Amino acid sequence: MSLKRYLPLLQWLPGYRREHAVSDLIAAVIVTIMLIPQSLAYALLAGLPAQVGLYASILPLVLYAVFGTSRTLSVGPVAVAALMTAAALAPIAEPGSAEYVAGAVLLAVMSGLMLTAMGLLKLGFLANFLSHPVISGFITASGLVIAASQVKHLVGIEANGHNLLDIVISLAANLGSVHGPTLLIGGGALLFLIFARSHLKPLLIRVGASQRGAELVAKTAPILVVVATTALAWGLGLDARGVQLVGEVPAGLPELTLPPLEWGLWKQLAVGALLISVVGFVESVSVGQTLAAKRRQRIDPDQELIGLGAANLGAGFSGGMPVTGGFSRSVVNFDVGAQTPAAGAYTAVGIALATLVLTPAIAWLPTATLAATIIVAVASLIDFPALVRTWRYSRTDFGAMLATIVLTLLHSVEAGIMAGVGLSIGLFLFRTSRPHSAVVGRVPGTEHFRNIQRHKVETSAHVTFLRVDESLYFANARFLEERVMDLVTRQPDLQDLVLVCPAVNLIDASALESLEAINERLTDAGVRLHLSEVKGPVMDRLKSTQLLSRLGGQVFLSTFEAWRSLVLPEGKPEDKPGGEPGGKPAEMPASGAR
Amino acid sequence: MSLKRYLPLLQWLPGYRREHAVSDLIAAVIVTIMLIPQSLAYALLAGLPAQVGLYASILPLVLYAVFGTSRTLSVGPVAVAALMTAAALAPIAEPGSAEYVAGAVLLAVMSGLMLTAMGLLKLGFLANFLSHPVISGFITASGLVIAASQVKHLVGIEANGHNLLDIVISLAANLGSVHGPTLLIGGGALLFLIFARSHLKPLLIRVGASQRGAELVAKTAPILVVVATTALAWGLGLDARGVQLVGEVPAGLPELTLPPLEWGLWKQLAVGALLISVVGFVESVSVGQTLAAKRRQRIDPDQELIGLGAANLGAGFSGGMPVTGGFSRSVVNFDVGAQTPAAGAYTAVGIALATLVLTPAIAWLPTATLAATIIVAVASLIDFPALVRTWRYSRTDFGAMLATIVLTLLHSVEAGIMAGVGLSIGLFLFRTSRPHSAVVGRVPGTEHFRNIQRHKVETSAHVTFLRVDESLYFANARFLEERVMDLVTRQPDLQDLVLVCPAVNLIDASALESLEAINERLTDAGVRLHLSEVKGPVMDRLKSTQLLSRLGGQVFLSTFEAWRSLVLPEGKPEDKPGGEPGGKPAEMPASGAR
Repeated sequence: MSLKRYLPLLQWLPGYRREHAVSDLIAAVIVTIMLIPQSLAYALLAGLPAQVGLYASILPLVLYAVFGTSRTLSVGPVAVAALMTAAALAPIAEPGSAEYVAGAVLLAVMSGLMLTAMGLLKLGFLANFLSHPVISGFITASGLVIAASQVKHLVGIEANGHNLLDIVISLAANLGSVHGPTLLIGGGALLFLIFARSHLKPLLIRVGASQRGAELVAKTAPILVVVATTALAWGLGLDARGVQLVGEVPAGLPELTLPPLEWGLWKQLAVGALLISVVGFVESVSVGQTLAAKRRQRIDPDQELIGLGAANLGAGFSGGMPVTGGFSRSVVNFDVGAQTPAAGAYTAVGIALATLVLTPAIAWLPTATLAATIIVAVASLIDFPALVRTWRYSRTDFGAMLATIVLTLLHSVEAGIMAGVGLSIGLFLFRTSRPHSAVVGRVPGTEHFRNIQRHKVETSAHVTFLRVDESLYFANARFLEERVMDLVTRQPDLQDLVLVCPAVNLIDASALESLEAINERLTDAGVRLHLSEVKGPVMDRLKSTQLLSRLGGQVFLSTFEAWRSLVLPEGKPEDKPGGEPGGKPAEMPASGAR
Repeated sequence: MSLKRYLPLLQWLPGYRREHAVSDLIAAVIVTIMLIPQSLAYALLAGLPAQVGLYASILPLVLYAVFGTSRTLSVGPVAVAALMTAAALAPIAEPGSAEYVAGAVLLAVMSGLMLTAMGLLKLGFLANFLSHPVISGFITASGLVIAASQVKHLVGIEANGHNLLDIVISLAANLGSVHGPTLLIGGGALLFLIFARSHLKPLLIRVGASQRGAELVAKTAPILVVVATTALAWGLGLDARGVQLVGEVPAGLPELTLPPLEWGLWKQLAVGALLISVVGFVESVSVGQTLAAKRRQRIDPDQELIGLGAANLGAGFSGGMPVTGGFSRSVVNFDVGAQTPAAGAYTAVGIALATLVLTPAIAWLPTATLAATIIVAVASLIDFPALVRTWRYSRTDFGAMLATIVLTLLHSVEAGIMAGVGLSIGLFLFRTSRPHSAVVGRVPGTEHFRNIQRHKVETSAHVTFLRVDESLYFANARFLEERVMDLVTRQPDLQDLVLVCPAVNLIDASALESLEAINERLTDAGVRLHLSEVKGPVMDRLKSTQLLSRLGGQVFLSTFEAWRSLVLPEGKPEDKPGGEPGGKPAEMPASGAR
């Protein structure tokens, strides 16, 4: 059982049949065709040699097939992770240098170790720190930064920077030196890809292609552009005309390597590796869950961490860059019918063949073509309507989203995502630090208690009933102290305060200390503190403390019992319980209090 | 009104009478006597010249009297803030150097700016990030580090380090060179102070002193030791025998100064200043609230931020170190009857007189004496029983506490407190990321629905009712996705899923996206998603989104209505509603679901 949990391969491999193999092989061929240009492009985006992208598309896919739980997730280099890799490596080395490549390998290894550790420790919940608006804002901003960063390749000028502002300034400064032939190649590729995305499928259907066939051909547009521009570059000898090409790529499979063991470097890259891991994980799980649900399958997020961790360790040890589950490839993999993770392993074989055979051709591929495929791919990541939707739905969520976008665009991806996470946690704690609470009074003639500001209820000048509609923990413990002391100072005649607790599911150590402080302060002020309707598990815990023995007042099972004991002796005859027509006064006192 | 809020002085000054002045003056004399040795000692602890402690006890007290809301809080240098000052300054300069002193002044100014800004922006809730166990663990660990750091002065050897481990190793290495005369002075002072703390008061009472008089004399023990050892050092010329003395202290009041305006330095000290601010604020508010409650007074935490901010700005601009409210002095101030913050202003006059008159004497004060007063003072901060109490009450809280203590002792105060804050937020999010939820069924013959695992209830193979007992927000949105998909994959016959939402007070944008994803995935899987008992405000928000129009199922006002619509048509005659003896089926359906 446990072996099956950690090796999901064992769940599907025993039942693997010929028809599965056929479906998986077809899917693998198509995904391979998509993945070749993508892996080259995302290596370029990360500032790495082309082969690093290919290497990250072989061993990681095999390992994910063994350890991953999604049947259709396509793991490998993706745009956002590539951008984050570039951002993390920028402070430590020059793009393309040996130290830079070693840094990328180390990032993959660290990310692998972090993901695996998180999976073994079942820390998948940490990904919850990334709220939807933050992730969505981050992806949109990353898309903009990525697209801007590729313009220099598209038009053949120099530019640099890791945020939109720097890139745009740098581009503007060099705009005079646009390289004509590069612009022709890049602009042409871009226009064709945009056309393919929006018009090719309808066109093919109009000329008689099947719906599915047309869609597949449209998806292979990038490889068509790659083949065409490579042929053009080779045929016209464009390298001599100054068009930048991918250049010589070492043929053959990657060798197993060890990452550099410099502690200083590990420390410098730790934050970057963590962010790459968490963002990659969140995106993978979200894609994986969406696809799995369509077939009523499930993925196990904690095991996904191990699967992605293994994939990244594989990437690192075979000279690749950080990897994660890609959205567009996974959707295609699913659509064309991949049945099991074996499709990923077959894709790995396809990429391995490419590194053995195609590298001489890849050398002639213009980088402008890759830039065009990147720009078209990331355009689909940019989601401005999400901003409007979030603004309409929740101002606090929008605040976190906007902070993420602005900082990602103007400062860096790391600052953007950390600001978003910090702000959403801060806003959340702010919201829960002021929980709803209400002074309640008795609905005349009943055992029900309601908010005195909304209902006509009976109250007492000497006894206040305060209902708290939230668990008590450190975020709101001090709020309760202030609320209670405020009540006490406003009512000089107060003798008894009853905390009505039916909605308190938890009292943590901070809240316990606050309750003790409240009790002590009330005692000093001559007010008795009572509790009512404390839930069973909460009461069990309180019994292990000194609070109950030091309590100035009592613990009442129901709020009405407290009323009967504290208020009725004041001698209002009409407050006598029972006798209401048809009422059974002792029935379900707990449910009436909320 | 608003002026009164920002200048609490206006609340008490108009009604200030002669009897207030008398009480405040008496309190000021006693607090001044306590504060002189403390301000010198905490300057020593922070690695600063003695006068910096005195300067921090003049202007800050006057400003707090104007802007603070506690009537009895005694502001000035305190031990923990002094330790944190030393820790923050350690990386930037040598203790005692001009840059070091400038750094301390800058820390006070930055802390003042941060506190004032937090007060004006009403960000007092940020202090909630520091849970009680973290603060308590931090104070205990700081007490241990402070005590260890003073041993070198007590025995006259060299040692350094900012955590317990480094200090102990450093002390052990130099233990051979203990300086006899210093040890005699320091050890004697320490023994007398310990004796005074535990035995002097009972002794005085036995020989006929009043309870209160005995207590006051016991509290003045530090000044007695200071006077006695200073006289000894002067009379015996102990400086010639190698006993370290405070040395020449510039006489006269502090001059107004500007902090250094180096941006790099500001950046380096930002984290330290923030931690000093927040820890100081939390401690001040906790002392202030406790004392205020005893007289049924209130303090306003947001205005307290402004009061402490003004005090720190005052400290910085008059060459002092960061200040905050001190526990022991405040309690004495309260006990001897201070009525208004004017007592603090009178204390400032007392300290100002001391800087004018007493500095020649202070020069002869042995540092060993100050070390002894520090050790005795911080001994009361160390609270090991709190560890046991927390362990018994809550393992998660204990985890955060232990992490804080271990990191403070073995690494640094900054690491300790940040680990504690991070861990308590993380553990809290972990707890709330797995909210209670239950599949419910109908209690036969009623309209009530209960957990199927705890009660004998009716269920349906085609319809599942899932009750969620928590607001839905980013921390648990994905949990809900997993819970729902788990239910769906386990029940192949499922056609309808009803989310029962009476306890959902909030659905944030992340949870909305999750609900949309759940709805989409369920639709893909052929299951309709329904909602029931959605609260009014939550429903209002949902109406502004696309969720309701895209919902596979319906929104039911009550769970029973959903049951009637989805389950009863399956045709079990016994499910017919109504007709139960004595029951009114349509009454309060909402309250029955929980």
